[in-house]
Amino acid sequence: MPQLEASDFAQAVVARMADCSDDRFKQIMASLVKHAHAFIREVDLSPDEWMAGIQFLTATGQKCDERRQEFILLSDTLGVSMLVVALEQARGARALADQPGEKPTEATVQGPFFWPGAPKRELGDDIGEGHGEPTLYHGRVTDTFGKPVAHCELDVWSGDDEGFYDMQKGDQMQLRAQFRTDAQGNYRFWSIKPSFYPVPGDGPVGAMLEKMGRHLNRPGHMHMMLKAPGHARLVTHLFVKDSPYLESDAVFGVRNSLVVEFPKHQPGRAPDGREMTKPYYTAKYDFRLVPSA
Amino acid sequence: MPQLEASDFAQAVVARMADCSDDRFKQIMASLVKHAHAFIREVDLSPDEWMAGIQFLTATGQKCDERRQEFILLSDTLGVSMLVVALEQARGARALADQPGEKPTEATVQGPFFWPGAPKRELGDDIGEGHGEPTLYHGRVTDTFGKPVAHCELDVWSGDDEGFYDMQKGDQMQLRAQFRTDAQGNYRFWSIKPSFYPVPGDGPVGAMLEKMGRHLNRPGHMHMMLKAPGHARLVTHLFVKDSPYLESDAVFGVRNSLVVEFPKHQPGRAPDGREMTKPYYTAKYDFRLVPSA
Repeated sequence: MPQLEASDFAQAVVARMADCSDDRFKQIMASLVKHAHAFIREVDLSPDEWMAGIQFLTATGQKCDERRQEFILLSDTLGVSMLVVALEQARGARALADQPGEKPTEATVQGPFFWPGAPKRELGDDIGEGHGEPTLYHGRVTDTFGKPVAHCELDVWSGDDEGFYDMQKGDQMQLRAQFRTDAQGNYRFWSIKPSFYPVPGDGPVGAMLEKMGRHLNRPGHMHMMLKAPGHARLVTHLFVKDSPYLESDAVFGVRNSLVVEFPKHQPGRAPDGREMTKPYYTAKYDFRLVPSA
Repeated sequence: MPQLEASDFAQAVVARMADCSDDRFKQIMASLVKHAHAFIREVDLSPDEWMAGIQFLTATGQKCDERRQEFILLSDTLGVSMLVVALEQARGARALADQPGEKPTEATVQGPFFWPGAPKRELGDDIGEGHGEPTLYHGRVTDTFGKPVAHCELDVWSGDDEGFYDMQKGDQMQLRAQFRTDAQGNYRFWSIKPSFYPVPGDGPVGAMLEKMGRHLNRPGHMHMMLKAPGHARLVTHLFVKDSPYLESDAVFGVRNSLVVEFPKHQPGRAPDGREMTKPYYTAKYDFRLVPSA
């Protein structure tokens, strides 16, 4: 029997998939194996280092539960999640390449704090009261030709004024809701001006980041997920323009077109007619969705 | 701020390690990130496929407990463990390249069934009684110049005649023991002729192998781990020459030099003087250890 050398093992694993009937799965596994083996050969990985890797992956899986997803955090902090977002966006752009119209809104990472089933609220409602500095979010959702997307679902979520998400604190949903645009595609709601915050640092990924010599912080941002029939789902953030860490987001999520001014206003009548007795901020952003594939 | 494109993210992650003070860790992480991103770009991974990967890794971590190591099984079945073994062996060979002497014994995977603290037994003891076909294992441990390694620790373990390891069945150790070579480096013990068996298929790795179109089987083998002061630890197997699956071991562990004849003998006096009332097998193998680094 021919003996396998270090450079042969990847091909031997790939050859073992001769009976695989799922071509896409086969393609993904073959590429994964090829690159994983190339990495290990390139660094001449020792058995002790291999075992440290096994223990790290095991601890990462075991840190996960219903409200903590340490593998998504690993993917986020190694730039993998944002790479997948960028590839998806590039596919969308290629599909639209021969059409006129405006550029669609850029996507960014979903992150580990999306909690399905947020309460449905009415346009103009305040979901941030008591949690930080009041901010009116408003704008319009259209397609890339400027046609309004009526009744578009808009899921929003953020951390509190100290940077903690509800899921990190307990069982009660906070600072998250689902709105719908009106017949003209307009949306408006009140929440807070989000603070920068560190990603969870008490697990294996936190230890990895520390060893890499990296900080754990993300710039302040409001998560938004937009869904409407006939349009591709958009998962994105609005980033606070004066936030620290915009240039070194721990998860590489910042896109220039998503950085938004949050002008401060003195007490008085807000653009939506609400009478404010204390200072407040506004953040205006228009979204452009692409057709679903 | 310059905007990162798909091909830029890996370098951005690497650049974030400017303050990393552990050069080897930095080298490993940089290579890992570079290859992980190259894999994802090469297959143009979709968000749904990424999420399937996150869920697979999470389930793999959560399948692990004190006696089940699903990530080692993943590493084994993707040829990664054997690659690490082969690299280690190649480093050893390079270190010995300018010395005379015989080739050292080849290593193979440790696998997930090593259980530290096996009982110490005397040379010639039978640890297999009642579990399968009796087999006398015997031979000598030397260095690469033929000098005996006296009092070498020899940990041995195997599955039973149906291919199950003790850890898969319960809390009682079975078919594993620690011996020591005598003053001339000789060893001998009785156990069974190991059967081929499937790696555990009831977890995420089993599902992956099925989807890859692969069988789960390993050819029959006796695990051996040799430790002696002044010598590098050797983790290896003896493979049963007439076993099925020698050409398609699910973990790619077979080395030609580790495939051993198991001749069958009629009842009578065995080479160690034991009087056998039923047929038995013998397996003779001499080990050559390399000096520790």
